[in-house]
Amino acid sequence: MSRVFNFSAGPAALPQAVLEQAQAEMLDWNGSGMSVMEMSHRGKEFMSIAAEAEADLRELMAIPDNYKVLFLQGGASSQFAMIPMNLLGEKKGADYINTGAWSKKAIAEAKRYCDVNIAATTEGTSFSSTPTQAELNLSADAAYVHYTPNETIGGVEFPYIPETGDAPLIADMSSTILSRPIDVSRYGMIYAGAQKNIGPAGLTIAIIRDDLIGDALESTPSMFRYATHVDNDSMYNTPPTYGWYLAGLVFKWLKGLGGLEAMAGINQAKAQLLYDAVDGSDFYANPVEKESRSWMNVPFTLANPDLDAEFLKGAQEVGLMTLKGHRSVGGMRASIYNAMPREGVERLVEYMQEFESKNG
Amino acid sequence: MSRVFNFSAGPAALPQAVLEQAQAEMLDWNGSGMSVMEMSHRGKEFMSIAAEAEADLRELMAIPDNYKVLFLQGGASSQFAMIPMNLLGEKKGADYINTGAWSKKAIAEAKRYCDVNIAATTEGTSFSSTPTQAELNLSADAAYVHYTPNETIGGVEFPYIPETGDAPLIADMSSTILSRPIDVSRYGMIYAGAQKNIGPAGLTIAIIRDDLIGDALESTPSMFRYATHVDNDSMYNTPPTYGWYLAGLVFKWLKGLGGLEAMAGINQAKAQLLYDAVDGSDFYANPVEKESRSWMNVPFTLANPDLDAEFLKGAQEVGLMTLKGHRSVGGMRASIYNAMPREGVERLVEYMQEFESKNG
Repeated sequence: MSRVFNFSAGPAALPQAVLEQAQAEMLDWNGSGMSVMEMSHRGKEFMSIAAEAEADLRELMAIPDNYKVLFLQGGASSQFAMIPMNLLGEKKGADYINTGAWSKKAIAEAKRYCDVNIAATTEGTSFSSTPTQAELNLSADAAYVHYTPNETIGGVEFPYIPETGDAPLIADMSSTILSRPIDVSRYGMIYAGAQKNIGPAGLTIAIIRDDLIGDALESTPSMFRYATHVDNDSMYNTPPTYGWYLAGLVFKWLKGLGGLEAMAGINQAKAQLLYDAVDGSDFYANPVEKESRSWMNVPFTLANPDLDAEFLKGAQEVGLMTLKGHRSVGGMRASIYNAMPREGVERLVEYMQEFESKNG
Repeated sequence: MSRVFNFSAGPAALPQAVLEQAQAEMLDWNGSGMSVMEMSHRGKEFMSIAAEAEADLRELMAIPDNYKVLFLQGGASSQFAMIPMNLLGEKKGADYINTGAWSKKAIAEAKRYCDVNIAATTEGTSFSSTPTQAELNLSADAAYVHYTPNETIGGVEFPYIPETGDAPLIADMSSTILSRPIDVSRYGMIYAGAQKNIGPAGLTIAIIRDDLIGDALESTPSMFRYATHVDNDSMYNTPPTYGWYLAGLVFKWLKGLGGLEAMAGINQAKAQLLYDAVDGSDFYANPVEKESRSWMNVPFTLANPDLDAEFLKGAQEVGLMTLKGHRSVGGMRASIYNAMPREGVERLVEYMQEFESKNG
């Protein structure tokens, strides 16, 4: 089979140009006679790959100098514990905004370590909206405020950056990082599993403001201390070298496309195309309020769920893969990260219209 | 440059046949139209890859049914904390055998969580030996006994499996797993970072006896609980899918070579070739007592360390790479894991003899 359009929420499609370069270099990187995955992480070849990837990410995101960039393992699920273990300091509690499945996981894990104040929740509307700034009940003494700017499962996205006063704002950007420019200086820390918009699974990126790196809870393992990784340039132990390299290739690819301003334009247009198709039909529906709709994850339902299986089968036959919605919400979900070309969304919209005309 | 012989201690050389297959499948695995690293970990394609890798590992190592096999992230350094956090139970202390740099790291981390009894140490002989069974001072009430069967830096290896009575034996096999058959039933748990003898960095394998999976210390993060990963077949969160796939290719390659009995013969012969070259010369030396010499990591020194840089430069010129010894011990180190062909060791021995004849 030729390459398909893969709408997986993560691990997700990677740019074909990146895969082709990785393929070409698989047995011999840059005349070294070895694969990147065979290189000592302390050798000059890999050190140059690692440094260049970080420099390119800093440039793409305009990361200020007082932020460290860490290349870690363990996914966002590890960060859910690392954040309270490292950032509580003398405080006893933290604020969490609950806008969906991933917020809830972060909250559940934080409760092992601190008092969690739910500053706002949209669970009452089945997570089909985001709270406004005025709706946030922030604590006076929170160690930090945590939120999920884009909920991968619900397809709901904050249209603004919350104001949190003196409490640093911590964001799980797994499914929105690199989709558009963001003002890093508004955050205390940003983190993201790579497997959606950065690279392969097994790499996690954390961008953390200098002054937040310090004393962890006594019980914190060395590998769960940000200071461990900061002090060792993310090489306290062997990092996920191949993922780091692939992330670097993705960063170069993004720079080649014009950086994050350009990606924002492309991504917004792709999302609009799909939401217009959904909204222009009574056959399809998306439950999320318009101002909080995700550019990256577009869930939609068929008016008649008995047709779901047939929709998915027909989609696969024309190379539109992994459209099944998350088991917790059903229906369909099209994840359209940076690596999904506009052509893939166009093909999906065509297929949706054909399917409706046959079955509507 | 053509492919070199890469003696890196880890990340280390991978079998060329494995890299070639990964290269061929990079953009399209088995007609799926996508790379393995783009696949949802919950889709049927990746689930089949994951299950087959585990089945092949179980067959290769003859892992009994009452052991779970986990595919994790975080390296041995994460296990150093996970082991006491998960295995202490009601006990307050554990026994550790200290035979080198990696033993010491495991001990330092365990001290965060329990009383560590050093059952034996060879630090007095600069880690050039292993303690005998009679030299082990095991506690009556240790939760477990931890040791490092092969020390990657010192190149020292246990010639026997310690008897530990009722206390389960826990082994960091990062640099010796799959080098020969082992009797898994003698262990409570075996763990290994993949980047030496299994696959790429970022994957960690743990093989743990059923009855040891249970209550963790209260402060243990979800991701650091073995029960979390056992209950979710190593898919509590997104696993390092590409590493898992590559490990599976390595397991198939090992089966094709005849399994671990065959590898033991090949590895012992490769190591003997190199030790004979070292021992047969006054120009080179290896400090480790003969019965405790590693088959996988062969450190050696030049009688005149002023020649070290020239030795390394000349080696690189003939495609013998990453021979520099660890910064803590100096000299040279040739890591000759499964993926190092006998030809690589032969070429190294030839080069050593030539270098001696010019400079000896």
